[in-house]
Amino acid sequence: MLLSTTEIRVRYAETDMMGVVYHANYFTWFEAARIQLLDDLGLPYRELDKRGYLLPVLECEAKFILPARFDDRLSVQVRIEELPIARIEARYEVKREEDTLATGRTTHAFMSPEGRIIRPPEEFAAKALEAFGKTEG
Amino acid sequence: MLLSTTEIRVRYAETDMMGVVYHANYFTWFEAARIQLLDDLGLPYRELDKRGYLLPVLECEAKFILPARFDDRLSVQVRIEELPIARIEARYEVKREEDTLATGRTTHAFMSPEGRIIRPPEEFAAKALEAFGKTEG
Amino acid sequence: MLLSTTEIRVRYAETDMMGVVYHANYFTWFEAARIQLLDDLGLPYRELDKRGYLLPVLECEAKFILPARFDDRLSVQVRIEELPIARIEARYEVKREEDTLATGRTTHAFMSPEGRIIRPPEEFAAKALEAFGKTEG
Amino acid sequence: MLLSTTEIRVRYAETDMMGVVYHANYFTWFEAARIQLLDDLGLPYRELDKRGYLLPVLECEAKFILPARFDDRLSVQVRIEELPIARIEARYEVKREEDTLATGRTTHAFMSPEGRIIRPPEEFAAKALEAFGKTEG
Repeated sequence: MLLSTTEIRVRYAETDMMGVVYHANYFTWFEAARIQLLDDLGLPYRELDKRGYLLPVLECEAKFILPARFDDRLSVQVRIEELPIARIEARYEVKREEDTLATGRTTHAFMSPEGRIIRPPEEFAAKALEAFGKTEG
Repeated sequence: MLLSTTEIRVRYAETDMMGVVYHANYFTWFEAARIQLLDDLGLPYRELDKRGYLLPVLECEAKFILPARFDDRLSVQVRIEELPIARIEARYEVKREEDTLATGRTTHAFMSPEGRIIRPPEEFAAKALEAFGKTEG
Repeated sequence: MLLSTTEIRVRYAETDMMGVVYHANYFTWFEAARIQLLDDLGLPYRELDKRGYLLPVLECEAKFILPARFDDRLSVQVRIEELPIARIEARYEVKREEDTLATGRTTHAFMSPEGRIIRPPEEFAAKALEAFGKTEG
Repeated sequence: MLLSTTEIRVRYAETDMMGVVYHANYFTWFEAARIQLLDDLGLPYRELDKRGYLLPVLECEAKFILPARFDDRLSVQVRIEELPIARIEARYEVKREEDTLATGRTTHAFMSPEGRIIRPPEEFAAKALEAFGKTEG
């Protein structure tokens, strides 16, 4: 399993007139967590991007349990539970201390700048395999 | 069935460095379509809000099929397929001419400003019943 | 003078916990007005973009007089008062019926994808000259 | 003088199809810096908000010198150069290492939830006076 956690401080701009965070903004936090996971893996997204690998979102979902509020300090955990082959599925949990505020999921595939689904870069496959090997034994 | 369609023109601010619309922005379009559906039903959301009815998003999801681009003219269709009782489930389809770019779903419940799930306002229930009666009968 | 007006309906996502529109969002409305002005001029921004002309914001400012609220129908007027040579200066006024909610200004220059300031496309210069000639007599 | 610096990591969502950060997003970074300055002063904005003090933006402006890009680590410095009486004027500088990417300014006043301009909370006045006394004396 690949796993990473990112700290988020809620911005005023992220709230709406309901006084809580606007739902769509959670997806930008999910992304911050994914970027961190790739960093932790030694494959920064900005490097992948320069080499022509895009990683668009094919599907996304979120479930909102408790509202996040302005200035909250949150932790966003992302995990990839299955060895990614063609598709990469990431799962998320947003927590404020012990409370789970939201959970989510995104699905991705590597894509060329021309919009074709392509094989992951070799290092990604290798590092993922290594990471999954490690956790499995 | 309740059904409504809203026209969207893609803003530059909604794109990202991939050259297409950033995925989280589709949820703001879904919302524009919901607001329009409530208008069409004669129950503008701003009126509900003034009377103390909030309609938060409990769950949301989207599937991205083809990218939306800057300045695209899109139609966002929303439909509520089942008579809403405690939960309201809305489904969405974003189209550029004949092409479906994305589909989605959001789930809602009426909530008081204090954060308690409450019964829908009576007119909503009545109008929904009427609308469902109409299409079914 | 070049002048154009765009209609905006305020989105829920554009509000913040103060119950009014978050200040930075006015700049996306200014942009919608600019895009419309270029359309009216017969030089859609998406065409300029395809031909390698970018029109970044070099400076921007806004003054907020009255708050815009969710679901307000606003008109955003943009005007270019001086014949644009190297720099293009646009001025904005956001109105709700007779009330002015905000005013603003942005400064732009044409830029190549490599980031160099370049001369405006010839048609832009010609159309601007024509438009200014017309209004001046 | 009051002065504070905040670290920002540029999000993918903050970029646009020009490949750089969308101009309006700098204002959300300016805000992050202001929030930090109030924290440093011992007057967290969330506390002021709970006590009924709003601090809306009356005016804002920015000048863009070099583009910020995805994943850049930036520092955003905010400073209040004059003892704030009725109006508070904050100035900003966004830097990537030694390079200044943008500068800006925002003007604020304390406001009641009903929208009236009010006197700053006493601690704010006292702490500001103390801070200005310190730097001047």
